[in-house]
Amino acid sequence: MTHPTDGNCIFCKIVAGQIPCFKLLEDANTIAFMDINPVNAGHALAVAKGHWPTVDVIPADVLADVAKTAQKVAKAAFKALDPHGINLLQANGEGAGQSVPHLHIHIMPRVKGDDVNLNWEQKPGDMAAIKAAYERLKAAL
Amino acid sequence: MTHPTDGNCIFCKIVAGQIPCFKLLEDANTIAFMDINPVNAGHALAVAKGHWPTVDVIPADVLADVAKTAQKVAKAAFKALDPHGINLLQANGEGAGQSVPHLHIHIMPRVKGDDVNLNWEQKPGDMAAIKAAYERLKAAL
Repeated sequence: MTHPTDGNCIFCKIVAGQIPCFKLLEDANTIAFMDINPVNAGHALAVAKGHWPTVDVIPADVLADVAKTAQKVAKAAFKALDPHGINLLQANGEGAGQSVPHLHIHIMPRVKGDDVNLNWEQKPGDMAAIKAAYERLKAAL
Repeated sequence: MTHPTDGNCIFCKIVAGQIPCFKLLEDANTIAFMDINPVNAGHALAVAKGHWPTVDVIPADVLADVAKTAQKVAKAAFKALDPHGINLLQANGEGAGQSVPHLHIHIMPRVKGDDVNLNWEQKPGDMAAIKAAYERLKAAL
């Protein structure tokens, strides 16, 4: 499948290897990597390789592949991080808290009382902590 | 595919037709219907027919089908309701706000300033309003 790209999109640059990431896995249509503005330890993203902004324009089979990739990461997160729960969250439009207009699913390990909201504030995480969570997830994949 | 069932599960009862719902669509592995405790107008659910509680135990292909069903409903919601955005949200475990342990994806139309949270309070909606949103979604499917 041909993947549309957008030269100004940060996720397209990550897919193309122009911006580094903590890469968890990659297949024909998808890639998964750590969110560097995590709401909790282990917050990761499953991303379509092609640049489709939202759920209403992405091909159904690619969306299905992104969901399967999110599932693999969520399984690893349950195994490696023992969270109190996990949310999978996908946002469409600024009104839904979407910050990067390139389809992605958040894999968000939850901790009781963490007070994570739907529209959270983007705050850069501690890189050493992100790398540590990455290594635990990667080992469980 | 054989669908596991749980006789005490409200979603299994809806799938079996023992409890009524505002049904949006149905296919081999999935069903979609209105959430009767909506956070916003048009709040709907895409649900696996089989009783798999969480993302780590559902077969990948069934999860993919649920995602495709959620996509169909989201497209209809964009067309029929013109929201400011749409969130797709899936919860695993009480710590992630999961209230029914049977895998489902929330399709949540968003309105700016709606203050919808990840762990929202379950409050019964107005049935006439739910039916009105249902009819608009159904017509757009």
